[in-house]
Amino acid sequence: MEPQNELFVKMVIDAWNKELSATNKLLEKLSDEQLMSEVAPSRNRGIYLLGHLTAVNDEMMPLLRFQAALHPKLTPLFIDAADRAIAELPSLQELREQWRSVSGTLMQHITRLPAEEWFTRHANISEADFPKEPHRNRLNVLLSRTSHLAYHRGQIVLLASK
Amino acid sequence: MEPQNELFVKMVIDAWNKELSATNKLLEKLSDEQLMSEVAPSRNRGIYLLGHLTAVNDEMMPLLRFQAALHPKLTPLFIDAADRAIAELPSLQELREQWRSVSGTLMQHITRLPAEEWFTRHANISEADFPKEPHRNRLNVLLSRTSHLAYHRGQIVLLASK
Repeated sequence: MEPQNELFVKMVIDAWNKELSATNKLLEKLSDEQLMSEVAPSRNRGIYLLGHLTAVNDEMMPLLRFQAALHPKLTPLFIDAADRAIAELPSLQELREQWRSVSGTLMQHITRLPAEEWFTRHANISEADFPKEPHRNRLNVLLSRTSHLAYHRGQIVLLASK
Repeated sequence: MEPQNELFVKMVIDAWNKELSATNKLLEKLSDEQLMSEVAPSRNRGIYLLGHLTAVNDEMMPLLRFQAALHPKLTPLFIDAADRAIAELPSLQELREQWRSVSGTLMQHITRLPAEEWFTRHANISEADFPKEPHRNRLNVLLSRTSHLAYHRGQIVLLASK
């Protein structure tokens, strides 16, 4: 293991942590009432984006080969379905708790994974195909989910008081 | 140069290209009228975010030690000042051209930089301090600007017709 690999892994994990921590701070600042509003007229509500981010981050756990998703029931509600397509959503209190538990569990796995393991395949590519597409590694999942988080944080922030 | 370094660099450049190309596609789809609207009530207008992203990407050129910014006059208008603080902004035609020229020039430099050069210091850290903070390298600038771009693309997309 070259030290530069460790540096690179640290850079990507730091970028994820920074984005996650900014999202946490924002969510804590937002009232339930604010989260029930649309980020812009006729667009997704905060509650939907909170559920969506929780579901996507939860799905990272099997994708990163860490463990099964904690709350697989979120996927049909917040990934497969659009906002308002499903009338009965979990409460905001429940969603806030699930967000925290997913973030915390994921963080534990991320912190513990040795640097060289980050360059092994993610779950959606077979061992046979991986040598041909070595960029489909676990670190690349973290990289792309960091942008995904930033994209939706840019929307959720519109709910905050100025 | 370890081959794995080239793989990391490719991963980060690919993430940047993907985000930039999605932003380009979105901007081309948006009419001037849509770009003159606010992304949400009392929030930044599309024109301001277009100028802001152009200015931030332009400033990446000196920060990455590539060359001087192409349009340094954008910085006071779109980084130092908030939207509507300055009455006279460049036209959307001008801003769209500047966005394209900045993106293109930056891309040429990014493509040409050898992989090992990405792990050298960015312009805001001295040669003396860099060995103590090796994460302050050029690749990390690209990493953080990818999240910045995603954050604002998540806002600009709210202007598009559904």
